Amino acid sequence: MWGIEIDRESELPLWRQIYKQIINRILSGEIKSKEVMPSTREMAKKLSVSRNTVCQAYDMLITEGYITSQQGALTRVSEGLHMEVIAEAKEYRNSAPAQVYAADFRTGRPDLRLFPRYLWQQLLNKAAGTMPLERLGYTGPQGDPALLQEISAWLYRSRGINVDTDNIFITAGATHALHMIAELLGEKGQRIIMEDPCHKGMHKTFIQKGISVIPVPVDQQGLQVEYLSNQTDACAIYVTPSHQFPLGGILPAGRRTRLMKFAWENDMYIIEDDYDSEFRYCGEPVSPLLSMDPQRVIYVGTFSKTLFPSLRIGYVILPRKFHTQWRKIRTHTDVQNPSLEQAALAELMASRKFDKHVKSMRRVYSLRRELMRNELLEKFKDNLTIIGDEAGLHMTVQFASAAPLLSSSDSFRSISKEKGVKIIPVEYHCIKKGIHVDKLLLGYGHLNEQEILNGIDIFESIFI
Amino acid sequence: MWGIEIDRESELPLWRQIYKQIINRILSGEIKSKEVMPSTREMAKKLSVSRNTVCQAYDMLITEGYITSQQGALTRVSEGLHMEVIAEAKEYRNSAPAQVYAADFRTGRPDLRLFPRYLWQQLLNKAAGTMPLERLGYTGPQGDPALLQEISAWLYRSRGINVDTDNIFITAGATHALHMIAELLGEKGQRIIMEDPCHKGMHKTFIQKGISVIPVPVDQQGLQVEYLSNQTDACAIYVTPSHQFPLGGILPAGRRTRLMKFAWENDMYIIEDDYDSEFRYCGEPVSPLLSMDPQRVIYVGTFSKTLFPSLRIGYVILPRKFHTQWRKIRTHTDVQNPSLEQAALAELMASRKFDKHVKSMRRVYSLRRELMRNELLEKFKDNLTIIGDEAGLHMTVQFASAAPLLSSSDSFRSISKEKGVKIIPVEYHCIKKGIHVDKLLLGYGHLNEQEILNGIDIFESIFI
Repeated sequence: MWGIEIDRESELPLWRQIYKQIINRILSGEIKSKEVMPSTREMAKKLSVSRNTVCQAYDMLITEGYITSQQGALTRVSEGLHMEVIAEAKEYRNSAPAQVYAADFRTGRPDLRLFPRYLWQQLLNKAAGTMPLERLGYTGPQGDPALLQEISAWLYRSRGINVDTDNIFITAGATHALHMIAELLGEKGQRIIMEDPCHKGMHKTFIQKGISVIPVPVDQQGLQVEYLSNQTDACAIYVTPSHQFPLGGILPAGRRTRLMKFAWENDMYIIEDDYDSEFRYCGEPVSPLLSMDPQRVIYVGTFSKTLFPSLRIGYVILPRKFHTQWRKIRTHTDVQNPSLEQAALAELMASRKFDKHVKSMRRVYSLRRELMRNELLEKFKDNLTIIGDEAGLHMTVQFASAAPLLSSSDSFRSISKEKGVKIIPVEYHCIKKGIHVDKLLLGYGHLNEQEILNGIDIFESIFI
Repeated sequence: MWGIEIDRESELPLWRQIYKQIINRILSGEIKSKEVMPSTREMAKKLSVSRNTVCQAYDMLITEGYITSQQGALTRVSEGLHMEVIAEAKEYRNSAPAQVYAADFRTGRPDLRLFPRYLWQQLLNKAAGTMPLERLGYTGPQGDPALLQEISAWLYRSRGINVDTDNIFITAGATHALHMIAELLGEKGQRIIMEDPCHKGMHKTFIQKGISVIPVPVDQQGLQVEYLSNQTDACAIYVTPSHQFPLGGILPAGRRTRLMKFAWENDMYIIEDDYDSEFRYCGEPVSPLLSMDPQRVIYVGTFSKTLFPSLRIGYVILPRKFHTQWRKIRTHTDVQNPSLEQAALAELMASRKFDKHVKSMRRVYSLRRELMRNELLEKFKDNLTIIGDEAGLHMTVQFASAAPLLSSSDSFRSISKEKGVKIIPVEYHCIKKGIHVDKLLLGYGHLNEQEILNGIDIFESIFI
């Protein structure tokens, strides 16, 4: 019958096999408009299937209007269904396997091996078992109230700032926070001032929203606020004052007050990205700009570095005037964060095991930084300087006389690839190119002692 | 000393209390520029704290540039830090408690009481314990390969369509999928054709992206394709062909082929939102438009209705030409979905317990629909018709003679509120107002037998 073939080994039910093949033949024109369909009894006999199976296929074809059956009349193919083009789904494989490096100096990667997995498993298990039923439904765009409470308490005990839970909004990480902020601020033609260099991903997040980015240069202390004065036509300034990414400076008090004054005078908002200030090794985390004016600063925090990236939980602290709009945007963007991991995180923080984990990782990362620093200084001596504050998960190095290798990014890239080394040059994160060609970023957070020693050996072999 | 007060009961470390109060006095001008700081010994004595505590506060003030210390010289307050305005963080409480209704007929709500929580808890626990370590890190914008595989297999056995895993991209639910699609398609001035009425949330998601929406009317069979012909200036058409939201029709084959031809002729994409087609009660789920041309249809699916909304997992099936751009946009939007729940969901599907749950919920919802239908017809007789296919989690009712109450949306709203009833009129979802004033939406998925009976009693009392 019309060349319909039945495959009894298939996972596809028999009725659906018949139904699919009839549709294909109708659309291709093999079975013509108004053609009378064979009776279900006849079709069943020809295909050696039960009549019930054919009835099910016919019912579906009628429901979807491929064939038409009127009481007492014959069942016929509907009109006007023939299509010239029947597209074929050709398949391409386009996912490449993740690359493995001999030495992987990528930045912003915590050591996942030291994450307290068993504890997290227990907390999730508890949350899954005890979370109130209604929290499986829609729970609103702001976030789990218990988590908001714990973040507020953590900010108080670790940074000394008072943040009311009403001002905290959970996000799916820092990139998502910036994307939302761009939605919040970025009407057509808006401009945002950014540090240059800054994190390329964050830069792209704004660019993608159609926002024009005005670069303002950075030195070893952070944003050079004196260059702000003639950039009065922007809606916001994006800064990383606690630990400038990528150069590593802490924005000094004098620049902070000038920055705040500039924002007030020109009615701009400050977007403070506090991406890794939990990890500062020669003292406590520095105070956020937020404490200077919570109605002028939008603060961005994340758990990607303190816990693990695929958790996808971060937060923003928002001036009141944006609350309503934020809720509206979030509702029509991705609705809310998943509820379960928020509950587990709230519990982790409430038990203070979060503080303990951060403290212990701070010790580990500090030792790793120290080891990498010593290795580099021993091998490169005066040819290399380490710049920036003692903080974070990466280190910025500057070559004394711009190493010949670095002056050509092509040859640097090819020799790195050949040796299996992954290193991001500061230049990669620069908006205006050519100023920081003598600097490289060496991520160490995710590398243990042996990996650091091996990595620096390979790194040395590139330059010597 | 400058009125600095120490609170030994506070969670804030003593050094931070001193540090904070000194900063406030510097910024407010109480402590002047260039003023000499008391020695740490003196300060410690005045405040009755250890000298070490004061040193820690001073170190931090030096790090952040509030005070300046040079070898052999006095420690002085830095210059230019006085700020006219010290903003105060006034706090407003703006979260209202969730409302409770006597009868809650909201749409799109699965019954969370019947979700197999214990099973889910076990799967999460297993995923948390066994997930490869590297999946705690960044795992890419497409989604967990195991989940992609399971979705592909599920689409094959439940809908009979072949979808290669390369074409599936995980999202944070259907709204997020539409937001991403809007980013993908919506360059400035783009226009999208939408069914009218359509889900207001989805409409808002496009509007929020600055996309102009062209409404095309819907009847009981779905999109009225004959009205498409003069709307050739759009980039895409958003449709719900398996179960039109909110009117409930299944788009017939004749309209499907006309729609596809229109899309080909005018180089438009079709966005197929298959939001609840798993729940069809008088037969199997209908075939998606996707099967007609996977390079022209962007298919949107979600687990919010089959599992639970706060899971925040859905997916799109994308034409090849969009793959690279999608990955880029996702990377700079919210990076990726959390990894753990993806792994648990993959396991739920692989074990076929997902199929079992969907099948059992289909039976439950079908009975609820039947009960509500019978109650309504008994109470309202010919004054009310139930329209749309027997599917989904809500029912659309039409009053025979537009009930006087419905002609005034204000009085309907006030009497509903008074009786504690939550009902969404179809009018709420209409772009062009005034056409569907005689229709209401009654969600039943989340209501058990008793709640339906009580609800319909209260519903009746509004009209009689």
